Amino acid sequence: MTPSLTDIRAAADRIRRHIHRTPVLSCAGIDRLVGARLFFKCENFQKVGAFKIRGATNAVLSLNERAAAAGVATHSSGNHAAALALAARLRGVPAYVVMPDTAPQVKKEAVAGYGAKITFCAPTLEAREAGLARIVADTGAAFIPPYNDERIIAGQATAALELLADIPDLDLILTPVGGGGLVSGTALTVRSLSPSSRVIAAEPRGADDAYRSFRAGHIIPSVNPQTIADGLLTSLGDKTFAIIRDCVDDVVTVEEADIIRAMRLIWERMKIIVEPSAAVPLGALLSRSVDVQGKRVAIILSGGNVDLARLPFS
Amino acid sequence: MTPSLTDIRAAADRIRRHIHRTPVLSCAGIDRLVGARLFFKCENFQKVGAFKIRGATNAVLSLNERAAAAGVATHSSGNHAAALALAARLRGVPAYVVMPDTAPQVKKEAVAGYGAKITFCAPTLEAREAGLARIVADTGAAFIPPYNDERIIAGQATAALELLADIPDLDLILTPVGGGGLVSGTALTVRSLSPSSRVIAAEPRGADDAYRSFRAGHIIPSVNPQTIADGLLTSLGDKTFAIIRDCVDDVVTVEEADIIRAMRLIWERMKIIVEPSAAVPLGALLSRSVDVQGKRVAIILSGGNVDLARLPFS
Repeated sequence: MTPSLTDIRAAADRIRRHIHRTPVLSCAGIDRLVGARLFFKCENFQKVGAFKIRGATNAVLSLNERAAAAGVATHSSGNHAAALALAARLRGVPAYVVMPDTAPQVKKEAVAGYGAKITFCAPTLEAREAGLARIVADTGAAFIPPYNDERIIAGQATAALELLADIPDLDLILTPVGGGGLVSGTALTVRSLSPSSRVIAAEPRGADDAYRSFRAGHIIPSVNPQTIADGLLTSLGDKTFAIIRDCVDDVVTVEEADIIRAMRLIWERMKIIVEPSAAVPLGALLSRSVDVQGKRVAIILSGGNVDLARLPFS
Repeated sequence: MTPSLTDIRAAADRIRRHIHRTPVLSCAGIDRLVGARLFFKCENFQKVGAFKIRGATNAVLSLNERAAAAGVATHSSGNHAAALALAARLRGVPAYVVMPDTAPQVKKEAVAGYGAKITFCAPTLEAREAGLARIVADTGAAFIPPYNDERIIAGQATAALELLADIPDLDLILTPVGGGGLVSGTALTVRSLSPSSRVIAAEPRGADDAYRSFRAGHIIPSVNPQTIADGLLTSLGDKTFAIIRDCVDDVVTVEEADIIRAMRLIWERMKIIVEPSAAVPLGALLSRSVDVQGKRVAIILSGGNVDLARLPFS
């Protein structure tokens, strides 16, 4: 069932002492460039370097004692894996993670560093699901999906709860979209607490399943998605899609060059590190895919985990 | 004459509405690594991306109307130049800057972007001074030195004023040292307001004139300094040296590999961008050149201006 505001507030209470309340930053230079007042919710400063710790912690802490004891398992290209590993460690239960062998080195090391047992697989949804099924059968661990799960969506929704408490009167909130956990949670919070604010999801053109699904009215999964935004390669699930269809105002796509340009701008002007996925919404503003002239606009900077030895700047 | 606490407070009042009050951040992971409680004063988030705007603004706003009208001039490898350009623009007077042609491209662009007139020269102190003398003779502009100047030192001292207001009971404050403006200002503030706290300057081994001067008791200028910390190539002046000799507790040197390791650690763990110069103090802690076990230690992160196309990570 779709999380209610009560569920989202319960998630916030459950995870509060385990996560950072991240700051909202602004940058006059970028404001001038896009002609709007921008507010950046810095989930790149979050534990494990991404908003994913919110949903993972909410899910792990929601398990009863008996279920938790057998551990938790998931498949993920990176940030959810690290988040689940840390959330499991804080509850003192084992974490089993299936990761595509193409995941960035820095994300593999983070997951291992938090004490999870990693199984590598080919970078396809089929290989990930098969690897996960074996682990769950062997261990009895509880599967914690990366996004298509009410506990995860309610946890990710808490970022917008903090954002709306800090910054009133927003015209628009933008997030990136991959599997849809962040944008669906954000839309649920915003619909309840600030119904006049619009919510827009920004997606790499090279992984545009959410864009096509939103327009078609049914899920169209990505086939061989290609983008530098490695956190956004996954396709929507039925739960996230239903919320996006009902509560998100629009989905826009962004070219790779605009993602890199936006990422560079955030690094150079704001002196903060964001991963390519986090730069996608600003890329949409730079390419004028969304009209924000004179508006108050928030962007959730979803994460900051990049491999410093493999940057796209030249 | 050495700036007094009254001078430093006057500088803080003079510049307050033109600069950012920068945050102090901490990082549990880095604390565990060095065995101390660290507080990072984030001057990388300061206007022009460095503490230099403090001194430059204080100096430009200290000029009388007649002197200011002819404009201001300086030589600088980068951050002071950008700072002076912005300070001049906010007072509405011209800025003339002599820069070594080896300065990072991002710093050249920043200075030009703030509207200064740039003259390039060879990367020697002699060439810089000759270029500056010509400009001052031609224009009547007021020379604003990069560091060896009471107005500059008083301005740089305001960063420690904010730091001490935010974080009480520090055992130790570390800053990088190049020309000595930041560390001498910091030492003046700390000696007045927190006399039991120690102040230590950290310097690249490849540009160790402050280290050698401090031990010799007289100025020994750098000859052909070589370091990735491009903000620290300059040698001490007589005014900064006198304060360092009297008020700084120690000067330590740091190897290039430790500077790069510290810079990478700050980028990866804190998700913030600092330039190599700003990473030198943490490099001193990583190499155990300073004993900080169990102590409360502040580091002034001096700036965040790096050329993203030329990073030292591999």
